[in-house]
Amino acid sequence: MKLPPGDPLGTHRVIEPAGALPQPAERLDNDLSKHYASEIIVDVRTLNIDAASFRQMEEASGGDLDGVATLVMATVQRRGKQHNPVTGSGGMLLGVVDTVGDLAAHRGFVPGDQVATLISLSLTPLWLDRITAVRPASAQLDVVGKAAVFLSAPLARMPGDMPERLALALLDVAGAVPQVARMCGPGDTVVVLGAGGKSGMLCAAEARRRVGREGRVFGVENFAEYAAELSSLAICDQVFVLDARNPLAVKEAISHVTNGGGADLVLSCVNAPGVELAAILAARDRGKVYYFAMSTSFTAAALGAEGMGRDVDLYIGNGYAHDHAEHTLSLVRSHQGLRDIMTRRYA
Amino acid sequence: MKLPPGDPLGTHRVIEPAGALPQPAERLDNDLSKHYASEIIVDVRTLNIDAASFRQMEEASGGDLDGVATLVMATVQRRGKQHNPVTGSGGMLLGVVDTVGDLAAHRGFVPGDQVATLISLSLTPLWLDRITAVRPASAQLDVVGKAAVFLSAPLARMPGDMPERLALALLDVAGAVPQVARMCGPGDTVVVLGAGGKSGMLCAAEARRRVGREGRVFGVENFAEYAAELSSLAICDQVFVLDARNPLAVKEAISHVTNGGGADLVLSCVNAPGVELAAILAARDRGKVYYFAMSTSFTAAALGAEGMGRDVDLYIGNGYAHDHAEHTLSLVRSHQGLRDIMTRRYA
Repeated sequence: MKLPPGDPLGTHRVIEPAGALPQPAERLDNDLSKHYASEIIVDVRTLNIDAASFRQMEEASGGDLDGVATLVMATVQRRGKQHNPVTGSGGMLLGVVDTVGDLAAHRGFVPGDQVATLISLSLTPLWLDRITAVRPASAQLDVVGKAAVFLSAPLARMPGDMPERLALALLDVAGAVPQVARMCGPGDTVVVLGAGGKSGMLCAAEARRRVGREGRVFGVENFAEYAAELSSLAICDQVFVLDARNPLAVKEAISHVTNGGGADLVLSCVNAPGVELAAILAARDRGKVYYFAMSTSFTAAALGAEGMGRDVDLYIGNGYAHDHAEHTLSLVRSHQGLRDIMTRRYA
Repeated sequence: MKLPPGDPLGTHRVIEPAGALPQPAERLDNDLSKHYASEIIVDVRTLNIDAASFRQMEEASGGDLDGVATLVMATVQRRGKQHNPVTGSGGMLLGVVDTVGDLAAHRGFVPGDQVATLISLSLTPLWLDRITAVRPASAQLDVVGKAAVFLSAPLARMPGDMPERLALALLDVAGAVPQVARMCGPGDTVVVLGAGGKSGMLCAAEARRRVGREGRVFGVENFAEYAAELSSLAICDQVFVLDARNPLAVKEAISHVTNGGGADLVLSCVNAPGVELAAILAARDRGKVYYFAMSTSFTAAALGAEGMGRDVDLYIGNGYAHDHAEHTLSLVRSHQGLRDIMTRRYA
């Protein structure tokens, strides 16, 4: 029997409103006895709930963990997905591949693979038989259930050589590293704002690989302990302990080490509002500014560059790039010092 | 006597808070008897107030135009700039070049030039002797005063061959056209969302010049009258009358004319929230999506691309590019049909 293909974006699972995409949809079809040739079905073991969503459910149930479980069951029953109606957020899931549709065979997954979805639970059709544990420390739920992964939805094989928590922490920001690889080359000067944080340190390490010995990588990090850890890796030519929300201080520091010219590429990895101008001022004329942080304001960047007459290319960080999971994991595997810090902080 | 140079970004005019850039600053030094070698001083004739700001001041003074004038005088006296404390917005100004500092001589302006500032009044030091008229229809004030233009602040010579209102309307979106010129080349397929509006039509016309006969330009425009006007110019291979907030309809239309591949470049010129996903879905794998509209949500674009597993480059529209004013005016001069529509609508 030939299965229906299903839409790569998953619109075949949208019940209401008609014509919506799965993420904004109110309700998805989570009847996973229906099969589509473009889907991968996963036996779900763990729901990794978005931190804001978990906190909201904890508060709504007065700290009672059974109450959290009840809320999750109710949401999934009503919406066909763990899409918290209050926070609007989801999370991700861990599980084992059950079946792979013919049209998804080229993705390279086979039944039995340990996998994690790299897209939000807010757009993943989910069926839950039961919840077996609620673990507030990690905002995780152990469950018995199934989920459908659409053809367009990124899915990653869990690495066998890392603790699960470290792998999840790295996969969470996997998009950044391949973008850096594309944006700079041998001899370039790169500035990373927030270079001591998780994505910042990964970006700095990738930039160093790309720019080579003739190139230069400068880090800006406000937290002295993170700055010291970054310095210890010898990835950066120099690490400035500075608040990236101070545009003039950042401009002065970078101007000083680039003879007034500015960097070819500036990567903004600071998870706080107000760093748009510093990033723009650190870039050279016709340089590139790449904003990874979700706290970035579109208008602050656009109007800031215009008001200061800075002719630079401004990028919105795309969390997806082809082979981003493998790219990021292999960077960390290749750099023992980086791996040690990441393990200490996140595993 | 040698003048002090002044900072290209204008920080030498910031009174409070110390260390701020001029736009976020509470108060600028508007004593224009002080001279700096990097500044151009303009005799101000007209303040073109931001629409939201003008409306707020009209309401605050109960529709009394003298009240608007009083509010403007008070703001300029207190802040040293027409930076509306309620709306946070400014506007631009028209005037005649008075003096050009030595360090600004290379910019090519001479005393007597009719000019417009292309940056906000919210960061322009302004001194007002008096206000001679308030013109609510155009949100303009005729004034006698002076302003300082920093070295980094874009300034444009007003064209002698166009009505002032048309020139201002074009200068207001001047950044878009040169960005399009950079982003596409011969043979490319370009999609413009909101292609019948002001910036959309300019972008479509520039795209047509760049992609040539082998390339293709598709317009998406929801307003039937604008779509018909755009079609009449024969710039686009096809104009779809569609709401760009409907991602699946846009995807289907563009997919159909690109054999499922999508466009090399998508330009989003729709001044309404909710078009981020349509723009992403109209682009090919590894294509470019350029968001010009200030209504764009950074997170909707970033998370949308990630959730749909779309490996595309996402750009924040920078309103400034070198020579943008001349570039945009010359495009309109070179295309009589486009000029006629722009004149009819905006002059």
